[in-house]
Amino acid sequence: MGARFFSLFVFPLVFCALILLALSIPSFSSPVRLSSPQFLGKFSRRPTSSNKLPVKRYRYDVRYFDQRLDHFSFSDDDPRFRQRYLFSSDHWTGPDRMGPIFLYCGNEGDIAWFAENTGFVWEIAPKFGAMVLFPEHRYYGESMPYGSREEAYKNSTTLKYLSAEQALADFAVLVTDLKRNLSAQACPVVLFGGSYGGMLAAWMRLKYPHIAVGALASSAPILQFEDIVPPETFYDLVSNDFKRESTSCFDTIKNSWDVLISESLKENGLSALTKAFGLCRELRNAQDLVDWLSSAYSYLAMVDYPYPSNFLMPLPGHPIREVCNKIDNASDGSTILERIFEGVSLYYNYTGDVSCFELDDDPHGMSGWDWQACTEMVMPMSSSQVGSMFSPYNFNLSSYEEGCRQSFGVSPRPRWITTEFGGHDIKMTLKMFGSNMIFSNGLLDPWSGGSVLQNISDSVVAVVTGEGAHHIDLRAATPEDPAWLVEQRATEVRLIEGWLNNYQAKRLISVM
Amino acid sequence: MGARFFSLFVFPLVFCALILLALSIPSFSSPVRLSSPQFLGKFSRRPTSSNKLPVKRYRYDVRYFDQRLDHFSFSDDDPRFRQRYLFSSDHWTGPDRMGPIFLYCGNEGDIAWFAENTGFVWEIAPKFGAMVLFPEHRYYGESMPYGSREEAYKNSTTLKYLSAEQALADFAVLVTDLKRNLSAQACPVVLFGGSYGGMLAAWMRLKYPHIAVGALASSAPILQFEDIVPPETFYDLVSNDFKRESTSCFDTIKNSWDVLISESLKENGLSALTKAFGLCRELRNAQDLVDWLSSAYSYLAMVDYPYPSNFLMPLPGHPIREVCNKIDNASDGSTILERIFEGVSLYYNYTGDVSCFELDDDPHGMSGWDWQACTEMVMPMSSSQVGSMFSPYNFNLSSYEEGCRQSFGVSPRPRWITTEFGGHDIKMTLKMFGSNMIFSNGLLDPWSGGSVLQNISDSVVAVVTGEGAHHIDLRAATPEDPAWLVEQRATEVRLIEGWLNNYQAKRLISVM
Repeated sequence: MGARFFSLFVFPLVFCALILLALSIPSFSSPVRLSSPQFLGKFSRRPTSSNKLPVKRYRYDVRYFDQRLDHFSFSDDDPRFRQRYLFSSDHWTGPDRMGPIFLYCGNEGDIAWFAENTGFVWEIAPKFGAMVLFPEHRYYGESMPYGSREEAYKNSTTLKYLSAEQALADFAVLVTDLKRNLSAQACPVVLFGGSYGGMLAAWMRLKYPHIAVGALASSAPILQFEDIVPPETFYDLVSNDFKRESTSCFDTIKNSWDVLISESLKENGLSALTKAFGLCRELRNAQDLVDWLSSAYSYLAMVDYPYPSNFLMPLPGHPIREVCNKIDNASDGSTILERIFEGVSLYYNYTGDVSCFELDDDPHGMSGWDWQACTEMVMPMSSSQVGSMFSPYNFNLSSYEEGCRQSFGVSPRPRWITTEFGGHDIKMTLKMFGSNMIFSNGLLDPWSGGSVLQNISDSVVAVVTGEGAHHIDLRAATPEDPAWLVEQRATEVRLIEGWLNNYQAKRLISVM
Repeated sequence: MGARFFSLFVFPLVFCALILLALSIPSFSSPVRLSSPQFLGKFSRRPTSSNKLPVKRYRYDVRYFDQRLDHFSFSDDDPRFRQRYLFSSDHWTGPDRMGPIFLYCGNEGDIAWFAENTGFVWEIAPKFGAMVLFPEHRYYGESMPYGSREEAYKNSTTLKYLSAEQALADFAVLVTDLKRNLSAQACPVVLFGGSYGGMLAAWMRLKYPHIAVGALASSAPILQFEDIVPPETFYDLVSNDFKRESTSCFDTIKNSWDVLISESLKENGLSALTKAFGLCRELRNAQDLVDWLSSAYSYLAMVDYPYPSNFLMPLPGHPIREVCNKIDNASDGSTILERIFEGVSLYYNYTGDVSCFELDDDPHGMSGWDWQACTEMVMPMSSSQVGSMFSPYNFNLSSYEEGCRQSFGVSPRPRWITTEFGGHDIKMTLKMFGSNMIFSNGLLDPWSGGSVLQNISDSVVAVVTGEGAHHIDLRAATPEDPAWLVEQRATEVRLIEGWLNNYQAKRLISVM
């Protein structure tokens, strides 16, 4: 859903490194560092609108469920928290008809925002007679332990229970309790999720087969760990999205970093850059600007939808094409940085009502994803010399770990996810032991490189679209949907129908 | 492996209840209470020999692995511990030939003891060219957190990480690390386990399909939770084992409880009972004696093997038959309690070298299983009026919970196991989504009633023997093995061969 570079915890390191490099290295190649991008990061949405939710389009009740903070150890002293979840039984056919339960695995943000941006689930629920559930992920939105976000995010002692395993157990406990209360034990649960939520859906299907009969995991990079896919994959894919629109656009961006650093080192260079890029506050270092620009490119790749959208920012259809148009067709004599500014303005100011750009929207905030990236979600990312339009960068686990220890006092466990959920041999595992999973991906999405792109068996299916971006299939249908998207959603509906028919048939036999 | 009644944490309640009942209730029916039996309890082995291991029969190295105490939350402050594991690569064909890894899921005790009593795994390893691993379960044997058993068992804060989920994660982390170090990532892991270890094997196969290709779960009562099987199942099965040998034996035992209580309430009754039962110390209450007797009957049912054995106590073949012989054929004019003493002496003193019986071998010890039973392993057990030879007793969750809060300051989570691992609908789940599992059970084993006794699919198979007892298939072959046991083991070997052949074939194709 979004990417974020140079997350805050790496920032002090980056800053020092930048100074040192600027002083010691004559060439300006590779003066900046890239940290792992995030699905949702600080530049994904406008600072002013980041907490504002879109108009509520779907009907649901907001409910709360009392959860234990630690499912995997036993103590009466451990705190509990109130998990928010959205609930709709408007179209549910109920227990007697084994009406299914559609459960969206809430990811790293406000669940209401995900619900509004997951129209697909709401739109197909009536056809299936399904209940719809959107449980929120712990430590996000309103589902805060310790009473407030401030307390929950205080330190590693309060944050230690923010993990995928605990979140999955939350979902399992919630839906089991709900089914019991509704005498709906026989009603099949189908999981949905996009991005990190898609990873959760896939993992929950693997780990809780007694709870969920199938999972649609959209844009879920479950293989973006350790050495399973090359670390250059993500940035190469972003870069390809630009190159396919325009080679000169790609080249302009690729060449811009050295120019930017070079400008920043001139006398009053940072002031000049502040002015050139219309920033609200004086630029403190070039890295901030690099970060802001790089983020825009990655987010653009994720939301490179074929129609106008307002998922992260308000954007036209094919936004990368539009950005490259701006870059390529800037007035004659424009400098390289002027072209870059023209391009990036399309992302950050498409509506034209931004008077200046704020690079430091949340100076104090450590995001929940920063914590997750510093514990189990260690996704190595490099930028290649050749295929990437970003500055070359080699992921370095040691400095990554050091950054995490400095920021959170916690050491990452880079091998834990593959131990707990698998990964290295996932295709073999899914082929032999998996079933009822859809991995859907659009190849424009830079996260697609870390997902499952090949059919694995009759019931572990990859739905791949050449022109799709980040979980576009989960978005509400629009009149502008291209034929491939309509077809993609129809395929997914047909597969889900198959799971449910199979389940209901077997269930009826087993009861008889 | 053994059962234990009236575990210590229920004892104070039982004692008070007994006094009240004795004072207030004219009839002596139902004066005692039954708590959940355990696989291994305080009367399962001789007090003096409980820490002594049998002669080492198998060749292995003893190794240690550094584990984190809490796999599911993230903090650098959390302690680590040294997990012991037994390792043998004597017959392993190695990575190049995809030599399998046989992993026995250590259960609630010293791993060396389980290794010695699981001859089957050692005996079939050469045929498969398999590595053999016996990792110890945390908080048992030498695998103690906090430096010592005393510290580890101090209170609920130190005990909170003693759980099945954490133990499975220990196994997963250990074997993943070991395989990486040996470049043996492609070598398939087959899980073995008996009793609680069998439950772990079955659950690990479900939860970690990327780690294990199959599991032999012997005598694994994974359905002994909540209301999945009737709570009377266990004691009814023990009772049936006696009834099938002799109805009069069954009747004598059934009638003995009222007599015993009646005697205990007479003047000097406890002293008389102390003498009659050859106890080392003055009996403090009838409940202790009831406990001691009931335990013997349940353990006898578990180890009702067709040949002489020394798994829990040294015993002849068909020990229940022998006990009933003693009870039925006591000299004419023997009282009912004299007959009972004759019978129970066979269990506690078959070798004839016990000079007196110790009822209070471990007065201070809370066992690890007590903790597990008070947290997640809540197995409701009742004794029926009709089918059981034990005193009638109805399991009462509230008093169970109250007992746990008093003893450990912890509240049980009776619904957690079925949420985390499934249960209510396990056959449907296994049919649709499971594979490569053997549930082996002997119907003499009272734990068999809580296990899977029917074939579920081609690859989820129940191997049931009418004359078998608690995981007899996992024991070393003996010249006295009956034909059905030889055949049972051959079936298991054939099924495991099938899993491995299938895996290796698929693996070769996927590599090509």
